Amino acid sequence: MAVSLILAHPDPSSLNHALARSIVEALEEQGVAVSVHDLYAEGFEPNLTAREIRTHVSGDPAVEQHASELAVADGLVIVHPVWFDAPPAILKGWVDRVVREGTAFERGEEGGFLGLLRARTALLVTTANAPYDPATGDALDHFWKGFVLAAAGVPTVERLHLTPVIASDLATRRGWLEDAATRAEALFVT
Amino acid sequence: MAVSLILAHPDPSSLNHALARSIVEALEEQGVAVSVHDLYAEGFEPNLTAREIRTHVSGDPAVEQHASELAVADGLVIVHPVWFDAPPAILKGWVDRVVREGTAFERGEEGGFLGLLRARTALLVTTANAPYDPATGDALDHFWKGFVLAAAGVPTVERLHLTPVIASDLATRRGWLEDAATRAEALFVT
Repeated sequence: MAVSLILAHPDPSSLNHALARSIVEALEEQGVAVSVHDLYAEGFEPNLTAREIRTHVSGDPAVEQHASELAVADGLVIVHPVWFDAPPAILKGWVDRVVREGTAFERGEEGGFLGLLRARTALLVTTANAPYDPATGDALDHFWKGFVLAAAGVPTVERLHLTPVIASDLATRRGWLEDAATRAEALFVT
Repeated sequence: MAVSLILAHPDPSSLNHALARSIVEALEEQGVAVSVHDLYAEGFEPNLTAREIRTHVSGDPAVEQHASELAVADGLVIVHPVWFDAPPAILKGWVDRVVREGTAFERGEEGGFLGLLRARTALLVTTANAPYDPATGDALDHFWKGFVLAAAGVPTVERLHLTPVIASDLATRRGWLEDAATRAEALFVT
């Protein structure tokens, strides 16, 4: 079992980074290999190029590496803050460039998608400051569960949504770190 | 009347660029000044920084310039392709960094938004290859009309959605260029 974790937050001292660490530690303790991609730390370039639109192949070795790894991962973890009911630009760019035709999905005859990923399960961990609004949940659920991961052929997407971060005390945050670790173990430790 | 136009497509020979040109020519012919921002050509950097999260001020002069211009524009035009039911990463990054607290909106007492933009009207021109799906429309409408432009205080957002681009013939594309120009004139020529 090899899991890919994608993290999209600019501040290494953020709750998002702590959540990613908690998940990685829990999984590795149980013998699950985790490949961690801190997109900001990697300097991931989010802008899909004209060449990529035409050819579905990238001149950027980082994109090719991400696409290859995504195709063969046994499980996915995505950790991000919710900005304007959507992922940060750097993560939208990871989707635009890496979740691409040819390696993540093929287009079917009638305009539908045929998913190519090996992963059957994804854990989506999101953080926000606004009180939970079902419309917000629906927008992000539509993006990840209804479109991106559905197109790529990942049938099970579980979501842990944590809010409000800004008003949370230490005990609450510790509980969230434990929740994230427990959810990841339940999904990926076999 | 001064209009800001934001364009987000990597290929200068794209329909998106032609649509932007058609709108600019029509408005300028009628005496409306248009400030054009081709985000790819400008090399706009989409990644919100940790400092920007903390302070709502940017160390990037391009972001400060965009924020100042957005605040005083009399009207907005946004032209973009639909990728995964959402704007390209570079445009999501423009939203993340430029549509910011302090210059585009303030937060109200109860978690709501108080819009700060002068513009009363925006024209959203989107292109796609998939057949029109109301769910797609809803996702983008939620993002722009339901959240970003609502938070910033722009009450009227008209949308021209053009699809499928990939199968369109020359006459269809010419018609779209005229439609875009006509819609822009109706909204911004006084």
